[in-house]
Amino acid sequence: MYIVILAGGSGTRFWPLSRKSTPKQLMSVFGGKSMLQRTVERVLPLQPKRVMVVTNALQAAETRSQLEYIKGVPVDVIEEPVGRNTAPAIALAASIIARFDPDGIMAVLPADHYIVDEERFRDTLSKARTVAESGKLVTLGITPTRPETGYGYIEAESDRGAEAAPVLRFVEKPPLERALEFLATGRFYWNSGMFVWGACTILDQIGRFMPELSSALAKLSFERDVWELTDLKPQIEEIYGGIKGESIDFGVMEKAQDVQVIPASFGWSDVGSWSALPEVMEADQDGHVVINAQGSVSVASDGCLAYGAGKMVAFVGVKDLIVVDTPDALLVCAKSAAQDVKKVVEELERRGKSDLL
Amino acid sequence: MYIVILAGGSGTRFWPLSRKSTPKQLMSVFGGKSMLQRTVERVLPLQPKRVMVVTNALQAAETRSQLEYIKGVPVDVIEEPVGRNTAPAIALAASIIARFDPDGIMAVLPADHYIVDEERFRDTLSKARTVAESGKLVTLGITPTRPETGYGYIEAESDRGAEAAPVLRFVEKPPLERALEFLATGRFYWNSGMFVWGACTILDQIGRFMPELSSALAKLSFERDVWELTDLKPQIEEIYGGIKGESIDFGVMEKAQDVQVIPASFGWSDVGSWSALPEVMEADQDGHVVINAQGSVSVASDGCLAYGAGKMVAFVGVKDLIVVDTPDALLVCAKSAAQDVKKVVEELERRGKSDLL
Repeated sequence: MYIVILAGGSGTRFWPLSRKSTPKQLMSVFGGKSMLQRTVERVLPLQPKRVMVVTNALQAAETRSQLEYIKGVPVDVIEEPVGRNTAPAIALAASIIARFDPDGIMAVLPADHYIVDEERFRDTLSKARTVAESGKLVTLGITPTRPETGYGYIEAESDRGAEAAPVLRFVEKPPLERALEFLATGRFYWNSGMFVWGACTILDQIGRFMPELSSALAKLSFERDVWELTDLKPQIEEIYGGIKGESIDFGVMEKAQDVQVIPASFGWSDVGSWSALPEVMEADQDGHVVINAQGSVSVASDGCLAYGAGKMVAFVGVKDLIVVDTPDALLVCAKSAAQDVKKVVEELERRGKSDLL
Repeated sequence: MYIVILAGGSGTRFWPLSRKSTPKQLMSVFGGKSMLQRTVERVLPLQPKRVMVVTNALQAAETRSQLEYIKGVPVDVIEEPVGRNTAPAIALAASIIARFDPDGIMAVLPADHYIVDEERFRDTLSKARTVAESGKLVTLGITPTRPETGYGYIEAESDRGAEAAPVLRFVEKPPLERALEFLATGRFYWNSGMFVWGACTILDQIGRFMPELSSALAKLSFERDVWELTDLKPQIEEIYGGIKGESIDFGVMEKAQDVQVIPASFGWSDVGSWSALPEVMEADQDGHVVINAQGSVSVASDGCLAYGAGKMVAFVGVKDLIVVDTPDALLVCAKSAAQDVKKVVEELERRGKSDLL
């Protein structure tokens, strides 16, 4: 199996820790290794043929540097000159795989998701590969644990437990009432953005539903018979100049027949904002998650997240706050407003504060 | 008039900005000059005979260094070997003044109070001096502007407007209901801890109500006829070894006859905790008070105070918070819980974290 990691996100919702040149996937959100490094290490026991990381020019150098230490599996870093959402990135990776290995199966994984049970995650991927080998498009559907309104949902035709089931439809982020209804049916899953399919299978579907993208990528020519991608850089730049941005969900998945969902329950979060961290990290005895700090003191406080810039953090009479301290910026945010951190970034852009972006 | 400034406070409620060696009065709470420097500068136009600053050994060097720039008025820094509350400090200063200037009038001022209208403050002090010259003990009573439960109150015999009035009694910090009653009478004032009296007058009263303190200080002997206080250091150390701590309020004021209150309305705060700063400093257009920061961004937030360690501060969805960022500690506190900051200091003491104290 080939592992294709989508690593082009800009991660403004993790400001001030994430910046343009160090978005979420390159950050050590949890302390220690970056999310990208964790994503790569997580699949190594599957012994993939290759790991292909698709990223953008601004982050390519840091991405390469972060993955230099990976041994035993070849790692390709593929640079997109501009971000064009997921469909072009996936189509590009699929085109390369199909050229050298027409029967190749690829797993598409975002670089910035959090997974609790890695063994179970790999088992799910293996199971998905088996289904993909029969020519299906497979999406990993996370068994929902709460009526989350921040995720898209996938409805399966039937509730088959842990087995693959045909997909009925994809549903955008629902209001709470609908999310509750979804959970009650037992047929809905969170759309994780993780997919497994044959490279030729997805290229075939892209040819059907995204003909412009398909013909743009058909121009890709390989001069050599060995896997050598640096040659492709000028071609990729030219191709990207003429294609539109589109997600694989909208471009293919919502339209294709024969999409299968594999129920997954390995503990998952897309870590979409600071408020997701307390959901996946264990709180200390005072009920706070404190990262990168010299200890903490809590007086009549709980439920806070602090990213502490290596200093002591003291909470007094506060609940459910996010505090992120960096050398040049300090964020104080209500957990419930974590999605609005991107508005700070927008405001800083308006003010031309490029040193803080 | 002699100005006696009580500067021995430890200011744990302004942690982490205030530390044992730099308590509130030595801090630049408002940016720029320290509260002690502001207190001294505020009285200079009155052309006092001397400014006497009573402090403790730990803070003496910094106190001297901060006041070196004061010209035109002699400044004494008197070191107490240990803090013994206000009565001994006042008795010590009064003993020195009485020795060289038996008719000397002294104004006792805390080093860490905030005053809005300095001209009016000086007018009030001058008025108080006139009353003190007739042998009265004078206390400045702040005309209350709200039913504050964090201050002690003084009840006057009658409501005489801006004139001095005899004091009926001193009242400890009241619950809200009582504070509201106090305000309704028009005869109650906030106890500011600022006093004006003849040095011999207060020594006489101390002799009556605090005979132990009085006889301990009677041992003070002056070898020379010139004002030279460094000679006194070993004597003060010996005297302090044998005296008890007591406030002048409890030791004398609550018992003495003939105490007069001068109503004062120059805009005052004892700056007792971080939450007092927003009361006396003007908020920015977003409703926050931001000190020592590289600007701020506010999204759906208001009423916060940030002491920013020279960095950009961003508020998202938060109200009425206090955030204080220093190189080794970060405080996040609800305004309403500002009094509990001292509990953090207590906890750090328990843990033996002396580097943070």
